[in-house]
Amino acid sequence: MNTVQLIKKKREAEGLTEDEVNYLIKNYTKGKIPDYQFSAFLMAGYINGFTQKETDYLTNEMLFSGKVIDLSDVKGKKIDKHSTGGVGDKTSLVLAPIAAAAGINVPMISGRGLGHTGGTLDKLESIPGFRTDLSMRRFKSSLKKYNAAMIGQTKEIAPADKMIYALRDVTATVESIPLITASIMSKKLAEDADGFVFDIKTGSGAFMQKLSDSRKLAESLINTSKSFQTRAIGMITDMNQPLGKYIGNWLEVYESILFLQGEAADDLAEVTYNLSGAMIYLGGKAKSSNEGIEISRELIANGKAFNKFREIVKNQKGDLSFIDNPGKYPKSKFTEQVFAEKSGYLKSVNNYQIGMCSLELGAGRRTKEDKIDPKAGIIFHPKIGDRIKKGDLIAELFTDDGSSIGEVKKSLQSALKFSTKRVQKMKMIKQVIE
Amino acid sequence: MNTVQLIKKKREAEGLTEDEVNYLIKNYTKGKIPDYQFSAFLMAGYINGFTQKETDYLTNEMLFSGKVIDLSDVKGKKIDKHSTGGVGDKTSLVLAPIAAAAGINVPMISGRGLGHTGGTLDKLESIPGFRTDLSMRRFKSSLKKYNAAMIGQTKEIAPADKMIYALRDVTATVESIPLITASIMSKKLAEDADGFVFDIKTGSGAFMQKLSDSRKLAESLINTSKSFQTRAIGMITDMNQPLGKYIGNWLEVYESILFLQGEAADDLAEVTYNLSGAMIYLGGKAKSSNEGIEISRELIANGKAFNKFREIVKNQKGDLSFIDNPGKYPKSKFTEQVFAEKSGYLKSVNNYQIGMCSLELGAGRRTKEDKIDPKAGIIFHPKIGDRIKKGDLIAELFTDDGSSIGEVKKSLQSALKFSTKRVQKMKMIKQVIE
Repeated sequence: MNTVQLIKKKREAEGLTEDEVNYLIKNYTKGKIPDYQFSAFLMAGYINGFTQKETDYLTNEMLFSGKVIDLSDVKGKKIDKHSTGGVGDKTSLVLAPIAAAAGINVPMISGRGLGHTGGTLDKLESIPGFRTDLSMRRFKSSLKKYNAAMIGQTKEIAPADKMIYALRDVTATVESIPLITASIMSKKLAEDADGFVFDIKTGSGAFMQKLSDSRKLAESLINTSKSFQTRAIGMITDMNQPLGKYIGNWLEVYESILFLQGEAADDLAEVTYNLSGAMIYLGGKAKSSNEGIEISRELIANGKAFNKFREIVKNQKGDLSFIDNPGKYPKSKFTEQVFAEKSGYLKSVNNYQIGMCSLELGAGRRTKEDKIDPKAGIIFHPKIGDRIKKGDLIAELFTDDGSSIGEVKKSLQSALKFSTKRVQKMKMIKQVIE
Repeated sequence: MNTVQLIKKKREAEGLTEDEVNYLIKNYTKGKIPDYQFSAFLMAGYINGFTQKETDYLTNEMLFSGKVIDLSDVKGKKIDKHSTGGVGDKTSLVLAPIAAAAGINVPMISGRGLGHTGGTLDKLESIPGFRTDLSMRRFKSSLKKYNAAMIGQTKEIAPADKMIYALRDVTATVESIPLITASIMSKKLAEDADGFVFDIKTGSGAFMQKLSDSRKLAESLINTSKSFQTRAIGMITDMNQPLGKYIGNWLEVYESILFLQGEAADDLAEVTYNLSGAMIYLGGKAKSSNEGIEISRELIANGKAFNKFREIVKNQKGDLSFIDNPGKYPKSKFTEQVFAEKSGYLKSVNNYQIGMCSLELGAGRRTKEDKIDPKAGIIFHPKIGDRIKKGDLIAELFTDDGSSIGEVKKSLQSALKFSTKRVQKMKMIKQVIE
C-alpha cells in the first residue's frame, strides 16, 4: 500500500477499505507516515467525508492502538455517559452517583476543560485531595465496591486518538462529524461499557452550534455504538445558555452538592434526570427511560444519590469536609456583582462568550498547558425568557485576577440580547435518538 | 493573521485575500508555518479550488520569493516556450534555434525529466561538454550575442515553488490546475520575458490526460500571463503517442539534428512549427502565427536554424563534433528489435507506458536522485492509424542494462491496441488559446 495513493483516493471522495484505514492509522501512530501526509489525508476526509463503515474502521483502529479495559469481572451492567461539552455542564457529577445508587456500574473516564467549555476532571479535582489518576486495579475495585469511579484518560487508552487530535487541532480539521465520532468512540469503547448515553449539546455554547449538525453527530455516535454491539441513547440538549447557574470548577461542584441535596435549577434537573433515567434504563434497572427518571428523583429525594457521591469522593481521597461544609472552601480575592443595563425579556445569550468570560476569570484554559483557578467563575442568574429590570443582579464574578473584571463585565453585558416582547423559555431536550 | 483560520477559510471554499496568500507563502517559505499545516491548506485548495485572483496572488508571492532576472538591457523581444511535458517531446531543441534565427531572444530555463516524461536539460546535457549552468552574466551575454541561451533553474528562482512542489508531490496535491499554474508561472515570470508560448499536452502520455483538463490549464496559464501583463498563446497538442520517433536523451538530440537538417517526422514538424510560428509572431517578427510558421520553414530550409543550433551548442561548451557527426556517439551495450505480434491498424498507444519503458532502459528517473544513461531509449516507429503487419519492426531498444529488455518488450507490446478497421490519424494541434 502507498500513502500518496490512499490520500489520492480520499481526495477523489472514494471509500477506503478496512485494510487501507488500518494502514494509515497504524503507520501514522508508528511515525512511519509523517504529519504532513496525515494532515492532507485528514483535510481530504474532512471535506469529502467518511462513510459509516469508514468511521467504524477509524474507530476500531484508534481503539486498538491502545489498551482496552477488561471489566468482565465487574458484575452487572456498565453504563457511561458522554457529553460534547458546554458551559456550566455539571451533569456528570450528579448523574454518576444517581446511576450508581440505582445499581448501575459507571466506569467514567473524563477529560479536562479547554477553551470556553469546562471538564469533569477539573471539576472533580477542585475538591481538595480528589484523585482522578487511579490505577486500573483501583478503578476496577472501586467499581466493584461503589459502582462508580471517575478518572482521567490514561496514556494507554487510544494513543492514536491523542496524536490525531493534536494534528487536527492545528490543521483546521476538528469539526468533522466522522472524525469527532471516531475520536469519542475510540476512547469510550475502551471503557468496556455495555451502553452509552450521549449528551449532544446544541446552541451558542456548544461545540456544534447548529441543531442539524448536532443531530448528525448524535446519529453517527449511535450508529458507531451499534457497529460495536453497544447500546446507546443520544439526547440533543440545549446549550444556548449556561446549564444551571454556576460556571467554574468548584462552583459547579457546589451546585452539584445543592442538586444532590434536592435544590436543583430546573434546566439542570431536566437534563440530568433525562440522562440518568436513560442510563438506568440501559442498565436494566428500569423498564423505560421515564421509569429511570422516577427512580432518579427518588434517589435524590431519599438522599441515596448524595450518599453515593460522598462514597465516591471518599474513595477517591477527596476531603469530605468540603462536601459537607462547602462554606469553608477558600474564597476568591475579588468578587464583583454585575447588574442589568437594560430592561426586557432575555431573548438570547452568547453562551460561548459566557464560557470565555469564565475562562478569563481563571476558571478555564486557553491551551492545555494553562493552569486553572478552581475557585474562579461566575454565578449567572437569568434564563432566556426571564423578565429582567434594569439594575437587577444578573451575575456574580469570582476571581483572583482583578485586572480581568472590567473586560469580563463588558463582554458579559454584550452577550445578552433583550426583547420588549415575551420570549419562550428554552426547550432543554431537543431530541432523543436511539 | 492566524494560520488555522486561513486553512479553515479555504476548507470552507472561501476566497483568500492577497494579504492572506502572502502570509501563508511567506511564512511557509521562512519555516514559520510547518509542513503539516501547509499540506492541509494545499489539500483544501486542491479540493475547493482557487479563483484566478488567488492564483495570481500565489504566483506573485512565489515569484518574488526569489530572484527575478532583469533582461531590460537585452534588446528586442524576449519570448520563451513552456511545455507540460511528454514522451519524445524534443520541440524545445528545435524551436529555440528557429526563433533565435528569426531574431527573437529566447531566454529558456528548463527542467529535468521525472517519471515517464523527459526533460530538455537532460537532453542538452547528453551532448558531451554542454553546460546548462551558466552564470546570470553569461546567460545575458549569450542572449545578447546569440539570441538564445538554454539553462536550468537556479536555486535563486522561485524557491517557494521548490518547497511547495516537494510537499505537493508527497501529499497527493499535484494535479491542481491553479497550483500547477502558480508553479509554472512563478518560474516563467522570473525570466522577464515579453511573451510565452505554452504547449499543453493532452492524452495518454501527458500530465493532463483529459482534453477538458488540458484546456482548463491552458486557460489558467493564459489568464495568469495576462494578469502579469505578459502576452501568451496556448496550444493544446496531442500526446497520445510519442512525438516524433526517438525517445531518450541523446536519441532526441539526434532527431532534432535530423529535423534541423530538414528531415522531420510529420507530427514533430507540425507541433514544432506551430509553436515556433507563435513565438515569432509574439516576438513581432511576423504579422501572424501562420507567417511565423512560414518563416520557420525557411529557416530550416536555408540552414540558418541549424547554424543557430551549432552556435548555441558551441557557446555552451558542447562538443560540435557530435552534432556534425552523430554517428561517433557512444553506443549502448544492448540493442534489441521489437516486432509486431499482431496485424491491423494501430488504434491506440498507452504512451505513459512507452515513457516508462524508456525509463526502464535507463533514459529516465524514478526519483530526482536517479542517474540517467544519455544513450538509452527507444526508436518507436508506428503512428496511430498506420497499417501494421505481424512481424513488422515497430521499435528498437537501446540500453546498457540487458536485464530490463524482457519486461520492456512485454510492456511495449501491451501498450499497443490494434483494430481491424481503418483508424484516423491523430490531429496534432487540438486547440489554440489566446
